[in-house]
Amino acid sequence: MNDSSDRAASEAQIRALIEARTEAIRAKDVSRATAMMATDALLFDVVNPLQYAGVEAVRKRLAEWFSSFEGAIAHELENVSVAASDDVAFSHSLNHVDGVKKDGQRIDMWWRATVCYRKIDDRWLITHEHASVPFDVATGKASLDLKP
Amino acid sequence: MNDSSDRAASEAQIRALIEARTEAIRAKDVSRATAMMATDALLFDVVNPLQYAGVEAVRKRLAEWFSSFEGAIAHELENVSVAASDDVAFSHSLNHVDGVKKDGQRIDMWWRATVCYRKIDDRWLITHEHASVPFDVATGKASLDLKP
Repeated sequence: MNDSSDRAASEAQIRALIEARTEAIRAKDVSRATAMMATDALLFDVVNPLQYAGVEAVRKRLAEWFSSFEGAIAHELENVSVAASDDVAFSHSLNHVDGVKKDGQRIDMWWRATVCYRKIDDRWLITHEHASVPFDVATGKASLDLKP
Repeated sequence: MNDSSDRAASEAQIRALIEARTEAIRAKDVSRATAMMATDALLFDVVNPLQYAGVEAVRKRLAEWFSSFEGAIAHELENVSVAASDDVAFSHSLNHVDGVKKDGQRIDMWWRATVCYRKIDDRWLITHEHASVPFDVATGKASLDLKP
């Protein structure tokens, strides 16, 4: 393959990974949603603490989040942008979740997501993920009701 | 050069860019701090709104932030991690600022930063930056007092 078809192949692989992960999150499947994460992946999550280091910490956090919902969750990504070389890539998007918490609270929120990938032993892995909402300077509150 | 020295050169270039930018932020110099940003750079910032699209929006936001401080600001990065191929790269770090706002409030805070780069016309440019603090689920407040 030439360089530009390599790039196109890499981008297609990253987009397929994103799609598989989005599906796994809809299914609230922790194993599938973290199967493509590097062992030493570092997560900057929407909620405290400052960081989650290692895929085990990410799995625990994700299991906790999934189980906080009563039933099914809707999940979609918008404005997905991907840049990929042959072994380093990143993506960013606006991510949406809609579901009902076990305490009856409806969660219908958007967050910002940036995901970083490396191809290791011929396989794309997520080595870093950054998910967040901004905050309102006037109130100090996290902005949970913003929409793209 | 062989592939691995290319990678080392790319990583060194990204680390130099990060250092130059950190210096520019210490100097509260908007032009220098954004000189390496792509025209269509997309910023997910610590504060509202959800996103800032384009380097002009980023410049305006940065000018506003710099001018909110009374005097000099201290600024440092910790846990800087860089992954670079020949034309796609990313970095992440924990960033610190310490300064006094014009209203007399001391700002001594850490945030999470993820920065994404592309080499365009033989020059590394920031095409995307994600900066945030997490929030406390119990209070809904942004966590401005976390430390690494």
